[in-house]
Amino acid sequence: MRLRGLSMNLATVREQYTLAQAVDACLAQGITAIAPWRDQVQAAGLKETASIVRANKMRVTGLCRGGMFPAADKAGFKAAIDDNKRAIDEAVTIGADCLVLVVGGLPKESRDLRAAREMVADGVAAILPYARENRMPLAIEPLHPMYAADRACINTLEQALDVCDLLGDGVGVAIDVYHVWWDPKLYAQIARAGASKRILAHHICDWLVPTRDLLLDRGMMGDGVIDLRSIRAAIEKAGYHGVQEVEIFSSENWWKRPGEEVLATCAERFLTTCCLQEQSVTGE
Amino acid sequence: MRLRGLSMNLATVREQYTLAQAVDACLAQGITAIAPWRDQVQAAGLKETASIVRANKMRVTGLCRGGMFPAADKAGFKAAIDDNKRAIDEAVTIGADCLVLVVGGLPKESRDLRAAREMVADGVAAILPYARENRMPLAIEPLHPMYAADRACINTLEQALDVCDLLGDGVGVAIDVYHVWWDPKLYAQIARAGASKRILAHHICDWLVPTRDLLLDRGMMGDGVIDLRSIRAAIEKAGYHGVQEVEIFSSENWWKRPGEEVLATCAERFLTTCCLQEQSVTGE
Repeated sequence: MRLRGLSMNLATVREQYTLAQAVDACLAQGITAIAPWRDQVQAAGLKETASIVRANKMRVTGLCRGGMFPAADKAGFKAAIDDNKRAIDEAVTIGADCLVLVVGGLPKESRDLRAAREMVADGVAAILPYARENRMPLAIEPLHPMYAADRACINTLEQALDVCDLLGDGVGVAIDVYHVWWDPKLYAQIARAGASKRILAHHICDWLVPTRDLLLDRGMMGDGVIDLRSIRAAIEKAGYHGVQEVEIFSSENWWKRPGEEVLATCAERFLTTCCLQEQSVTGE
Repeated sequence: MRLRGLSMNLATVREQYTLAQAVDACLAQGITAIAPWRDQVQAAGLKETASIVRANKMRVTGLCRGGMFPAADKAGFKAAIDDNKRAIDEAVTIGADCLVLVVGGLPKESRDLRAAREMVADGVAAILPYARENRMPLAIEPLHPMYAADRACINTLEQALDVCDLLGDGVGVAIDVYHVWWDPKLYAQIARAGASKRILAHHICDWLVPTRDLLLDRGMMGDGVIDLRSIRAAIEKAGYHGVQEVEIFSSENWWKRPGEEVLATCAERFLTTCCLQEQSVTGE
């Protein structure tokens, strides 16, 4: 039953399984929640994905991903808004708990981070009414500062919460330990996020030493230096008792292993390394 | 004359030149300031380095590096303190403007960043009286969060300034654009650093997109996405008009090129990309 606190972000087994195969493989391990990426949903078919989810009583803890707002021109920004509305529709169709936003970095040829950050706030503001109408919470995921240029110019939990405070209801944060573990203000900002009911997701993996690739060398929980249990304790203390979602990009290790081994290892490490004794899972 | 605002951190040409050769090569380009690493000084000999510097009237904008305080046990911490005092002696001998501190990351087997950060504050406090006696300013260099585990657990300018405020006089910060450019609070913290006279050094290079290696893929100024001129303007507005020191670790590009080409490119890019029109250089 404690595995009900675990969700598999399907990026973790993207090289091994289709979405349908991943659902079967998760259930075989006792894992009852997933978070797919849009390309995986598209490959499976949107309606077919919704059917698979329903038929298997899977929980969908998030759809990855909307965002990518900063653009070099108005047409690009408009295209991003339209695409994010489609992502909201897809998230609704598959019954996701939230749409995760990776907000985007600098537009081509730009060095103006401040302008990019304004475009992000404007972009989230532009889709928020549509998200509210459709009761789809938007989860801004602050990404590690090493992705500021090319993936997300929201790089700390504090910064993400500032944007949330600006925009009001219907938007919160996805706290991925990989992106925020280093932050000297992490614990204070987790408390802040909890106090304003902004925590929508908790993603886990580990930071390896050494890290050999900026994007594709994430570690399995327990193999790195992140104090997963302390962070979880802070998140629960802040009032969030939802699932922990494993998201591991690992081109040279986990993506090369049998999917069954990866899922079994995630389940085992979740229980031994991430899960608190007194953990309860809510929001189901 | 505008090249008097430029210093070469000798890591930039470490594969091409000994310290003595680097000084000659710098002077040939009109560059009159350097910042060596301790291994380079050791290879040249400490007294010999001091002679070379004096004979050539070079300015030494910093010695890299002290720090590395967090240790697994008391003996390790004591060894770090002793080593830092030797580094202060060396910095004094070669007439460096400051000793740059790369503070260290997690001790082996530790996941306790908070404890590591306390050891850093304790370590700087332990060497500060000796640094003050010897009139050697200590420059804490906040390192990019991607180095939190293995190199430095001080990862933002705000955090470094908090440590400075705790410790009082004789300690400040080295602002390296590579480490801080992404920070949403950068400009506010530069102003804060200036107001408390904490800016001791300004290091430059660029952030490449994509970045292929966490440590050794820094870019030449102008080749990446850092808004060097805006950051410089903020630093000057904050009251620091000292040199800009080029520090580029680049195993696959600049370390493989002829040293003369590297230095000439640094000088040219400094003038075209980093230097403000109204720049003046003081503190000489």
